Amino acid sequence: MSYNAPVKDMLFVLKELAGIDAVATLPGFEDAGFDTAQAVLDECAKLSGEVIAPLNVEGDRAPSSWRDGEVTATPGFAGAFRQYVEGGWQGLQHPSEFGGQALPKLIATPCIEMLNAANLSFALCPLLTDGAIEALLTAGSEELKARYVPKLISGDWTGTMNLTEPQAGSDLALVRSRAEPQGDGTYKVFGTKIFITWGEHDMAENIVHLVLARTPNAPEGVKGISLFVVPKFLVNDDGSLGARNDVHCVSIEHKLGIKASPTAVLQYGDNGGAIGYLVGEENRGLEYMFIMMNAARFGVGMQGVGVAESAYQKAVAYAKERVQSRPVDGSLKQSATIIHHPDVRRMLGSMRAMTEGARALAYVAAAYSDNAHYHADPEVRARNLAIYEYLVPIVKGWSTEMVNEVTSLGVQVHGGMGFIEETGAAQYYRDARILAIYEGTTAIQANDLVGRKTVRDGGAVAKALLGEIARTAEELGQAGGAAAASMRAQLEKGARALANVVDYVVANVKSDPNAVFLSSVPYLKLAGIVLCGWQMARALLVSQRELANDAEFHGAKIAIAQFYAEHILPQAGALETSILAAKGDTGVLALSEVQF
Amino acid sequence: MSYNAPVKDMLFVLKELAGIDAVATLPGFEDAGFDTAQAVLDECAKLSGEVIAPLNVEGDRAPSSWRDGEVTATPGFAGAFRQYVEGGWQGLQHPSEFGGQALPKLIATPCIEMLNAANLSFALCPLLTDGAIEALLTAGSEELKARYVPKLISGDWTGTMNLTEPQAGSDLALVRSRAEPQGDGTYKVFGTKIFITWGEHDMAENIVHLVLARTPNAPEGVKGISLFVVPKFLVNDDGSLGARNDVHCVSIEHKLGIKASPTAVLQYGDNGGAIGYLVGEENRGLEYMFIMMNAARFGVGMQGVGVAESAYQKAVAYAKERVQSRPVDGSLKQSATIIHHPDVRRMLGSMRAMTEGARALAYVAAAYSDNAHYHADPEVRARNLAIYEYLVPIVKGWSTEMVNEVTSLGVQVHGGMGFIEETGAAQYYRDARILAIYEGTTAIQANDLVGRKTVRDGGAVAKALLGEIARTAEELGQAGGAAAASMRAQLEKGARALANVVDYVVANVKSDPNAVFLSSVPYLKLAGIVLCGWQMARALLVSQRELANDAEFHGAKIAIAQFYAEHILPQAGALETSILAAKGDTGVLALSEVQF
Repeated sequence: MSYNAPVKDMLFVLKELAGIDAVATLPGFEDAGFDTAQAVLDECAKLSGEVIAPLNVEGDRAPSSWRDGEVTATPGFAGAFRQYVEGGWQGLQHPSEFGGQALPKLIATPCIEMLNAANLSFALCPLLTDGAIEALLTAGSEELKARYVPKLISGDWTGTMNLTEPQAGSDLALVRSRAEPQGDGTYKVFGTKIFITWGEHDMAENIVHLVLARTPNAPEGVKGISLFVVPKFLVNDDGSLGARNDVHCVSIEHKLGIKASPTAVLQYGDNGGAIGYLVGEENRGLEYMFIMMNAARFGVGMQGVGVAESAYQKAVAYAKERVQSRPVDGSLKQSATIIHHPDVRRMLGSMRAMTEGARALAYVAAAYSDNAHYHADPEVRARNLAIYEYLVPIVKGWSTEMVNEVTSLGVQVHGGMGFIEETGAAQYYRDARILAIYEGTTAIQANDLVGRKTVRDGGAVAKALLGEIARTAEELGQAGGAAAASMRAQLEKGARALANVVDYVVANVKSDPNAVFLSSVPYLKLAGIVLCGWQMARALLVSQRELANDAEFHGAKIAIAQFYAEHILPQAGALETSILAAKGDTGVLALSEVQF
Repeated sequence: MSYNAPVKDMLFVLKELAGIDAVATLPGFEDAGFDTAQAVLDECAKLSGEVIAPLNVEGDRAPSSWRDGEVTATPGFAGAFRQYVEGGWQGLQHPSEFGGQALPKLIATPCIEMLNAANLSFALCPLLTDGAIEALLTAGSEELKARYVPKLISGDWTGTMNLTEPQAGSDLALVRSRAEPQGDGTYKVFGTKIFITWGEHDMAENIVHLVLARTPNAPEGVKGISLFVVPKFLVNDDGSLGARNDVHCVSIEHKLGIKASPTAVLQYGDNGGAIGYLVGEENRGLEYMFIMMNAARFGVGMQGVGVAESAYQKAVAYAKERVQSRPVDGSLKQSATIIHHPDVRRMLGSMRAMTEGARALAYVAAAYSDNAHYHADPEVRARNLAIYEYLVPIVKGWSTEMVNEVTSLGVQVHGGMGFIEETGAAQYYRDARILAIYEGTTAIQANDLVGRKTVRDGGAVAKALLGEIARTAEELGQAGGAAAASMRAQLEKGARALANVVDYVVANVKSDPNAVFLSSVPYLKLAGIVLCGWQMARALLVSQRELANDAEFHGAKIAIAQFYAEHILPQAGALETSILAAKGDTGVLALSEVQF
């Protein structure tokens, strides 16, 4: 099997770090406790490992292809997608009234990780559909919901997000697509959208495009953007499919990775106008799109964790099998498998520590989200929501940055074979590279972290989390042992660095915005490193207590936590130094264009 | 032009940091001063930019191809190679008695950088030929030299290095190819060699393979390996080509990058044995191969610098042209080119700082090499040789690690367009990924740095360099200004970290070898960061003095040096913490295989 879902570690995080028992006390989630999670994860592991992962390499070798406006998915993908939707997986976290399973995000999250670990290109299709469902549920009329959501959940149809245009990438103020009201409640949509993931394919009978466009006389900039549903095939009142709509895929991109996932250029309205239906109110499109984007951003963070896990598993398998060179300690007189070599252990340790840390933080964030949406007490909801929203750019930004390093180490463990495409390590390296770019680059995440998530509340949420970290550090002090001592020292240093940086950001963003934003990505990375380190510390405490019950599992958890403390957390201090040094920068910020 | 050689920065480094004037006082280099360098670099810049760089993208789209044992290079490559050799470039640093130009390594080095920046795949062919020439000159008989070297320098023939076999990658002890003496002074060679760069092609009339193999009854392991010349076509006594030798290319690899450079599987002796000629003495093959490897390793370090420069240039061009989002400081009411955005400046600053630092260190190393080989005083030669040999694994290891980060940032600056292959940023990311692997992975470089270069002399060379750094830090203290103060603080911290680590390595390698080698790569990175930082500090001092003469150039040098101080050098402390924490490690080193 090319991917073996780490169900044991996932359940450990759900139970010991993310508090699934507490989530199961929320109204509606009474049946969604540990046992349910275990059953769901086991099933998902089977589907991911046996059905979806085996198609991953094929998707790279025989990418989806375009011909005369039609896109054919990689052989096998359509069949696997049928199995996926027939198993009810698309509806995992969606309401039961529309055919979903209504499970907590905390249980859906490991499933999303598995799917993406198994096959990133494949998993993008359900991920985008999830986003479309969330946007419709939040902002769509009852009629739109009733017409589209059940079909999206059943997988008869899939969904897309249409934001980007050639001149409008991160900058949605530049969107030029337009929508003209027809007097009958419908609109005609015109324009070109690019980078539309699964924007055209043959895996479902209809595709539901959610499209940003401007109505006539709309205000300039982001306040004049509206959101429309534009189905590939119009939908009759009885739910059957009608005429082909005027949206066409004119090409797909030739990409570095995720080649099985078609990235479409969509042309709207070349033959009179594509019929579209307004979602919610005019000019509030960006707000609704952010609902999709925030869900998608969290999902992209999980993609990072998933691909990192797959790259790690592949590297471990190779390291256990490849024989090369004698051990440096002279313990063997002949060449050994390379897992004996300290540098290979350093690489595997780095890969696993970063992956486990990012996984733990993301699952913990998912639990905050469940509490934010379903807790009976509005104050608890609000507090959880604020923390979740602080964590989203970090889960997205840090998981997708670290996966570039993890997949690069995965190539390196393979030596020369890592550079040969047939080995498969290079595919993870290529596929992963999009993750820090799409759904908002790391800089976009970091600007969100600085602006909306830190400055707006004066750093209050960040400080609340630092308070939690201080409590964990205290527990480490009481726990004893070398690993806990090492973790305590590094976690406290990291937390001080983060606290100093939060203070600096809040104090200087108005007076010295360029310097603060020069450091926004370093701040995001620092926050990611420290918050994941906090989760590794919590895991260490649990595993020290449980060691006697399962020495193999918990012994490894402790070793990896210690590795995280000693090899990943020390980067926090370096980032702090860089960030604080930028104050009043007269260096790269002051250079003229010609000096670059 | 897709690549514009940074001749001005190269000449700055040659003159101000690497001491070309001093090199021009060495016997034989009297005409090889600054003016010569300038003339040679200008010519090379023209060839690289106008002839070789334009073929780079084509090489990726139409890689070299294999059919029936023959390899056809990318269209245009053969013609460009003719221009290259007819310009005398292959002989740049080789002796004039064999047709070379006999220029110092210091002048050849920027030319190698340019060639690799322009087209990594293309440049590999001359790079391997250089290695073959050096091995023959050092260890070959007069007859072998006379027969092969002039043709290699003229480019009528090219050279290869044949080390790797399927079971013998980094571990040459496992080499199984064999060579049977025929009684007439020749040998018959049998075996399979893989990963042979430019091992078969149609750009030259003959290919001179330098092949590691075992003679009958040779000792086991690396002490039983001999080096042979095995030409593709046998060479008659009059120098004309004779029969086709029994070495055949049975396939080429499908790779992540450098696709235009054919990576051959060579089969020796399937039809009775390939005729080979012993180089030097039996069983000393590894020693001779190391001559080629050390030259090649330095060259691969330059490949890292070259590709980093190209990725930087491409990113800058895009950043000056792409319009997206308003400046964060509110200085413009409409969207601006992205070079206005602080995070883009951070990325460009990182790319340039790492590239300039690695370039400076490599050129300085080249000057040590020239002094090591040509200085009249044997003591000076020995001292320079020791420093050069300490620097080789760092130039190779650090330049090739940093280029992965630089090319990744290059993709990131392009946003979504970076992931589209037609943009070209992704090619640098893919091409560069081999550099930290071939000619010895970073771990192999790091083990060399620890074992042969640090422990063997008790850290003496490292300490000597630290003494030089302390003098530079003092000068910074006298120089004044914010940039110099910042650089001094960070350089001194970095130097202390390096000193502590050298002490730790020397003191613990015997008692705790696994922990020390767990940290060998972090030590190499630390040394790279600090030594490049030292060169950036020296550049800063010069540029502060010269600022009034050329404010545009020197102002940028100062800003980039300050950026290096504040964003790259702080990583030294994090690495030190990780390295020292590994002492007595009972974490990842103690895990059982099943725990991974």
